[in-house]
Amino acid sequence: MDHVTGKTDSTELEIGDILAQKPYGRVITMHGAIHDIKEMSGFSFITLRKKDGVVQCIYGGDFDLPPITEECTVLVTGIPKEEARARNGLELTLTGLRVLTRPKASLPVKISKAKMNLNVNTTLDLRAVTLRNLRERAVFKIQEGLTRGFRDYLEKAGFTEIHTPKIVSAGAEGGSNIFRLDYFGRKAFLTQSPQFYKQIMVGVYERVFETAPVFRAEKHATARHLNEYTSLDFEMGYIHSFYDVMEMETGILQSMFDLLNREYGRYLAVLKIELPDVSNIPCIRFDEAKRLASEKYGRPIRDPNDLEPEEEQNIGRYFKEETGSSFVFVTHYPGKKRPFYAKDDPTDPKRTLSFDLLLNGMEVTTGGERISDYDEQVAKLRAKGLDPADFESYLMLHKYGVPPHGGLGLGLERLTMALLGLDNVRFATLFPRDLNRLEP
Amino acid sequence: MDHVTGKTDSTELEIGDILAQKPYGRVITMHGAIHDIKEMSGFSFITLRKKDGVVQCIYGGDFDLPPITEECTVLVTGIPKEEARARNGLELTLTGLRVLTRPKASLPVKISKAKMNLNVNTTLDLRAVTLRNLRERAVFKIQEGLTRGFRDYLEKAGFTEIHTPKIVSAGAEGGSNIFRLDYFGRKAFLTQSPQFYKQIMVGVYERVFETAPVFRAEKHATARHLNEYTSLDFEMGYIHSFYDVMEMETGILQSMFDLLNREYGRYLAVLKIELPDVSNIPCIRFDEAKRLASEKYGRPIRDPNDLEPEEEQNIGRYFKEETGSSFVFVTHYPGKKRPFYAKDDPTDPKRTLSFDLLLNGMEVTTGGERISDYDEQVAKLRAKGLDPADFESYLMLHKYGVPPHGGLGLGLERLTMALLGLDNVRFATLFPRDLNRLEP
Repeated sequence: MDHVTGKTDSTELEIGDILAQKPYGRVITMHGAIHDIKEMSGFSFITLRKKDGVVQCIYGGDFDLPPITEECTVLVTGIPKEEARARNGLELTLTGLRVLTRPKASLPVKISKAKMNLNVNTTLDLRAVTLRNLRERAVFKIQEGLTRGFRDYLEKAGFTEIHTPKIVSAGAEGGSNIFRLDYFGRKAFLTQSPQFYKQIMVGVYERVFETAPVFRAEKHATARHLNEYTSLDFEMGYIHSFYDVMEMETGILQSMFDLLNREYGRYLAVLKIELPDVSNIPCIRFDEAKRLASEKYGRPIRDPNDLEPEEEQNIGRYFKEETGSSFVFVTHYPGKKRPFYAKDDPTDPKRTLSFDLLLNGMEVTTGGERISDYDEQVAKLRAKGLDPADFESYLMLHKYGVPPHGGLGLGLERLTMALLGLDNVRFATLFPRDLNRLEP
Repeated sequence: MDHVTGKTDSTELEIGDILAQKPYGRVITMHGAIHDIKEMSGFSFITLRKKDGVVQCIYGGDFDLPPITEECTVLVTGIPKEEARARNGLELTLTGLRVLTRPKASLPVKISKAKMNLNVNTTLDLRAVTLRNLRERAVFKIQEGLTRGFRDYLEKAGFTEIHTPKIVSAGAEGGSNIFRLDYFGRKAFLTQSPQFYKQIMVGVYERVFETAPVFRAEKHATARHLNEYTSLDFEMGYIHSFYDVMEMETGILQSMFDLLNREYGRYLAVLKIELPDVSNIPCIRFDEAKRLASEKYGRPIRDPNDLEPEEEQNIGRYFKEETGSSFVFVTHYPGKKRPFYAKDDPTDPKRTLSFDLLLNGMEVTTGGERISDYDEQVAKLRAKGLDPADFESYLMLHKYGVPPHGGLGLGLERLTMALLGLDNVRFATLFPRDLNRLEP
């Protein structure tokens, strides 16, 4: 009988190992994919793509090189040395190369170029290969860092991570933008947000978060809409006002950016990104923000109850110009455009105790205080034309008691897009889903 | 204009704060929910439920107590002291109490009992309140620790976290056990596993993981099946054999249990759980495991290609008795019951280079090496009666090259169930989905 002990002692080095151990002048072993081959006179540059970067290898004819092409995966031996002109400051003089796997066909696009300059559909149709480009890879490493920073901060702040169902019997956000499915002969939906469940869980753990997919059957074919995206959600009890939620989000953003600066510097460098300052985020009431942007940029206010995309852009621009901040919290949205669980402002019942966070003029978060009183929630459901009987299991929360609470949802792909200055949210999504795209 | 800086200076203390700061004899402030009230002669015990435990409070008539019931949320002031007989070794003599929110109705079940002893349906129908019971809460704190341990280990091992779509155009696991939905007039499905996408991402980052929901339209109404569950998935390139995947899983389990012992001891204590040893997991071939269990327990082998649940139990029991291990890896499953991406054993083409991990006689993981060669994958699809044209975007992976690779999926709820000795997987799920249950 064999045993497995969880210990591995691979002799194959990663770039990080070489930079740490500096085995210069000695023969080492590495695996990787052939990212690029350049034939020079008398020697070749072979670029090896590894999980943590690329390594420039030199083949000088010292051994018989088997036939290789781009995207062969290989095991090489070689002697590393410091080489300031190469990426990662490393160069490997090859002493041997063995092919592990071979592609069936040659690449349809050149992925070793710094920028591929393909159109959206080609980029997405060929996702299995275009993601191998170093810029594309960097985008989703940054995205990983954002998710990690979110979780790290909330874990330290005493939040519990939860997993809530995506197949549900009722939508949380209302409207017709919901996917339907057949659930063993019953009508069911795909969740638009974990709203009901995270509120229920405030009654259990006080503070909870979830990082999970949500689904919106929106028929928008814009550069900033997806039909499936990753929502970073939290909900917290015992708040004193919805400003506590905004403070928590500001702390999260600080944690995210600290982590990126600390551990993801090389990916920020590939994308030439400098992270915005989040030590201090301005915060302004909805009506005031509308007015200021309208006055400064001469664009009349048409809908007093909502922000049009261009108005959001102008508000973002205003605060960038006036305060230097890329972020701005807009508070006290009119109740008309907020969901039924949003708490009305007791001093101005047409406004809600809610906010959006804009980054570079685009909404990346919606949050606020929720209703915790049963009668108040039932009355608001009715006022929105909804039947409380349809929300029985959700209302158990209010019926059996919940602390004053609030929370938010942060769209991971939108945050990535706005932060990295991508011009389409699809480029901030590994495998986007939109009106026309179900593959890959 | 206001500003938000991410700094909070709450004066409300948590249990952990008191244990660390020891402000004994001084007046402090705390919030919480009234978990239990016991009237004694001349004074009352009021148990406050907080996110990190419960605090015994004493009200001796020193101020006017407003009317309170269970599940009121309150803000109290009081003087803490050490009290060995109380939970967390703390007692708070109340000097003031303010009600923050009140429930509309009294609790339908007594949640402050150590064990509620309700049937499955009552427990699940009343999830918004039954989860407030301290044992129930402990289960999902342990579950959180398992997810954290999984991520922590893989991050350190150089894996990249990914988010892949749940709405897909084809199922990865085949069969009819798949939910269908209407996607803007096109036929779409809910993902059965992130298999295709994590393989594609091996071509990008070498090592990837995802913790996300998967969906199975299985019509099984058993104590161990769910129609939606959380799958902890990873996939790794440049493996030398599928034993590398098993080593990685063993390392993950060690990381999970280390974290639980380090940070979740009080929840393990509530549930009276001692974690099994994972320093060394036995590993046995499928045929051999079947034969040993059949011989020892006198149960004839009926299906040579699969393990029946009772056979799994017997194999688990065999290895517990013979080696003391609660875990066992069963390897080299017959190809007949393995999916089309499983790599056949070149020395025995009816077997695959795959494994299951059993914990206490229940399968918690399926994994193995995958096919990386294009022609081999196309041939296997055909042999399984599938049309390669239906898998075009997946096959791009093999067409344009991928290293030798393998991975696994670990069912979070099943792992929680087996580890905690729960008799129904629904008790390891916050809001389970089964044949009959879509709510809450």
